[in-house]
Amino acid sequence: MKLLEERIRRDGIVMEGNVLKVDSFLNHQMDVDLFAEMGKEFKRLFADRPINKILTIEASGIGIACITAQEFHVPVVFAKKAQSINLAGETYVTKVESFTHKRVYDVVVAKKFLGPEDHVLVIDDFLANGSAANGLIDLLISAGATVEGVGIAVEKGFQPGGKLIRDKGIRVESLAIVESMDPATGEIVFRKQ
Amino acid sequence: MKLLEERIRRDGIVMEGNVLKVDSFLNHQMDVDLFAEMGKEFKRLFADRPINKILTIEASGIGIACITAQEFHVPVVFAKKAQSINLAGETYVTKVESFTHKRVYDVVVAKKFLGPEDHVLVIDDFLANGSAANGLIDLLISAGATVEGVGIAVEKGFQPGGKLIRDKGIRVESLAIVESMDPATGEIVFRKQ
Repeated sequence: MKLLEERIRRDGIVMEGNVLKVDSFLNHQMDVDLFAEMGKEFKRLFADRPINKILTIEASGIGIACITAQEFHVPVVFAKKAQSINLAGETYVTKVESFTHKRVYDVVVAKKFLGPEDHVLVIDDFLANGSAANGLIDLLISAGATVEGVGIAVEKGFQPGGKLIRDKGIRVESLAIVESMDPATGEIVFRKQ
Repeated sequence: MKLLEERIRRDGIVMEGNVLKVDSFLNHQMDVDLFAEMGKEFKRLFADRPINKILTIEASGIGIACITAQEFHVPVVFAKKAQSINLAGETYVTKVESFTHKRVYDVVVAKKFLGPEDHVLVIDDFLANGSAANGLIDLLISAGATVEGVGIAVEKGFQPGGKLIRDKGIRVESLAIVESMDPATGEIVFRKQ
């Protein structure tokens, strides 16, 4: 998606340690007009799939997921990173390792919100090592739901997550795939799609 | 807002300990078509204010804030509940006590996203004791920003948060105010607005 690639080139900051900061428009400050265009693109890419629910993970996936869900007119469920006293009743649980925070989280979804009748699009802001996306797919498998696809804003193509998930036969659509990036020059090369 | 009150009556669950579960449509599974109506109502209520940014707090405020921001065509900033290695540079910090989780969090916003030029609407899903909203107001005061108002989906009118913030001279608009609720019968009484 040209609009997103151009925005990453303009406002993204390449840092040491394979960190791409896009916090001015994607995951701390959020440009909702950009999100609306991203939502339309996800709708176009997954138009042939019978999606009735979107699943994301807190916190930075929620904004993109909600605005994308407006295109599909389906509810969003977000997986939570810790057990809450408000999450009474049974939950599906998996573990996710955060690339950013260098921590392993328990990630939960209330069972009543995912079941065999659901055809789910997974949405997240980043795909790097694939831990979050794999965790969400685990939750969907536990629920007996159908994984219709994974929609990602920014994929780091030089990390293994995208290949891991595609090798499972799951359709992954990333709006921008970073093939390489150089913290010394700030240069970002995108995969041709 | 009648639509939200009716939805709370239909799908909200009153539990012991002043807990109102609205996780089937507001803060775990999210009805984005309902959020769109709530966003329009916040736009109507704050139409006279020169709002150029929306501030919320992760995680459950983000969806409502993003969809509301589409009405205002302004960016959303969400305050984060823990320091992240991706949040390099200076941050504003405050403390928030979670009613749900019975914990005190450090809450941070990168300084570059809030400043004296900003006229900010605070958006959150719940207002109970007011700790989250007060924390967000603290961050805005630290930044020298103007607090144009606070927009809340569900206020618990029998807890002190709403009065505390209104007594500071800040305009608070809650789309539904629960005056009382009874876990034995499930009855919910809303304040007339």
